[in-house]
Amino acid sequence: MKPNGPKVVALGGGHGLYASLSALRRVTDQLTAIVTVADDGGSSGRLRRELGVLPPGDLRMALAALCGDDEWGQTWRDVVQHRFRTDGDLRGHAVGNLLIVALWELLGQDAAVAGLDWVGRLLGAHGRVLPMAAVPMDIVAEVRGADPSRPDEVTHVKGQVACASTPGGVLGVSLVPADPPACPEALAAVEDADWIVFGPGSWFTSVLPHLKVPALARALVSSRARRAVALNLAPQPGETDDFSPQAHLEVLRAHAPDLTVDVVLADAGIVDDPVALDKAVQEIGGHLVLADVAADDGSPRHEPARLAQAFVQIFSE
Amino acid sequence: MKPNGPKVVALGGGHGLYASLSALRRVTDQLTAIVTVADDGGSSGRLRRELGVLPPGDLRMALAALCGDDEWGQTWRDVVQHRFRTDGDLRGHAVGNLLIVALWELLGQDAAVAGLDWVGRLLGAHGRVLPMAAVPMDIVAEVRGADPSRPDEVTHVKGQVACASTPGGVLGVSLVPADPPACPEALAAVEDADWIVFGPGSWFTSVLPHLKVPALARALVSSRARRAVALNLAPQPGETDDFSPQAHLEVLRAHAPDLTVDVVLADAGIVDDPVALDKAVQEIGGHLVLADVAADDGSPRHEPARLAQAFVQIFSE
Repeated sequence: MKPNGPKVVALGGGHGLYASLSALRRVTDQLTAIVTVADDGGSSGRLRRELGVLPPGDLRMALAALCGDDEWGQTWRDVVQHRFRTDGDLRGHAVGNLLIVALWELLGQDAAVAGLDWVGRLLGAHGRVLPMAAVPMDIVAEVRGADPSRPDEVTHVKGQVACASTPGGVLGVSLVPADPPACPEALAAVEDADWIVFGPGSWFTSVLPHLKVPALARALVSSRARRAVALNLAPQPGETDDFSPQAHLEVLRAHAPDLTVDVVLADAGIVDDPVALDKAVQEIGGHLVLADVAADDGSPRHEPARLAQAFVQIFSE
Repeated sequence: MKPNGPKVVALGGGHGLYASLSALRRVTDQLTAIVTVADDGGSSGRLRRELGVLPPGDLRMALAALCGDDEWGQTWRDVVQHRFRTDGDLRGHAVGNLLIVALWELLGQDAAVAGLDWVGRLLGAHGRVLPMAAVPMDIVAEVRGADPSRPDEVTHVKGQVACASTPGGVLGVSLVPADPPACPEALAAVEDADWIVFGPGSWFTSVLPHLKVPALARALVSSRARRAVALNLAPQPGETDDFSPQAHLEVLRAHAPDLTVDVVLADAGIVDDPVALDKAVQEIGGHLVLADVAADDGSPRHEPARLAQAFVQIFSE
């Protein structure tokens, strides 16, 4: 079958990436997700500590977003997403996390991508899922007022969970280790892409970390691909409490000064100051697309069909 | 594709059933395993206690024995058989056990067979795997000399692990609950079978328990199928320490007085007293087939190709 649609690389993690992949899979069958591997909470955090592996949770969720449409794909998606409800040893583990880790153990060193490809084949996945780096990472955030009793003090907070839940204001993030081995397949996908999509998602802990992996950041800056940023529908409690849409672009720019962006997609309903946003978009080299991409239920979630429609428009420009 | 070979039902559990299935899959593509669900040790025992499910381990091993021959089947077999090597929460859990349990939780009550069928489809299994009963069981053994200081005292020992490892001599087994709900698909397979194969395997804890599930025992006795018994290559330490081949048949008869057997298969090399064995075989209604079915490495393991050849001969009589 002839490939259909542009070569798209989507960057992110967690629910935001799930949303972008749920949309992008409708637009192209040449889709690659590059996923954060800095989670230290929940099932992923425990597996990482117990077995020394990459945290599998965000990778699993991205694979689930790409599952086949038939009964086979849907059933195995439900299995990999299933969590054991118990107070015992298995509490909270997602089955897909265990499956991914088992494949990594079986296939040996440097098998991160091969293991994910096997789960992709299991799910009949419409695309490929890759880690942003070949080793587990830790996010370190520079935070103002992490201690509410000293609101002006700037300190460092380590760990994705701690960064995402700090009561302070996050100013920026970096990674430990600072120069991890990149995933060669991820670099190749970026170099070969027609479009690179940043977001939506937790800005500091899911979208920006990719730009702090030096080899990946260089590839993202130098790729001949066009670049799109999909803004969130609401500020993230904790991380980006009081962030305007343009503030999201400003921190993106601060984390990757050399990166230019071609298109910024925002939901028409959440932009209070379109002039300010348009100015911020122009400053990073792009133009603004306003579209109706939110779900009708009032939740800050993208509606996959609407987000897909917006991407169709953007990719056809 | 036209089915090839007779309809065969194999009864057992653990490594013995793995051996018979590894042979029988070469002989027929109409193969059903009916598996003990009384394990209370290891990964299965923990899952059973933590989640209240059927112990999945023997079911998993039977499915693994039936996996497809291609890279897909072999890889997923390796995954389901993989155990986590850790001192943490996941210690010793087989991945396939977790996968089976997840499917049971997802598919809901009465989904034991549907969940196993999904894992069978994953593995490209050459046959079907069913539980001997629809609820978790406990084996209770009548044991002489369970306490070595009182060698003649007969007591009861509860639990598969305890029964299999008692220092005493096992006289017989029963089940708790004594009249569990049977698995309808297992009853139907028995009724529809051309051949029913008992053993090899741990005699008291893997082969005889099926005969103590009343509805299954009735089906096994009344089925129009012919019945074969494959004897072990060596006595089982603990369970059947000092058992001759004919002693195995005597306890089979004691546990199912109405059951007739058409053929008993024994390895020529392990029969010290062929006259006595032949007499014991005739007493349960059958005839003896001696064949060379042991592995060459001196272990008490059946060689699948040789065991398959013996079954071909038996089924063609």
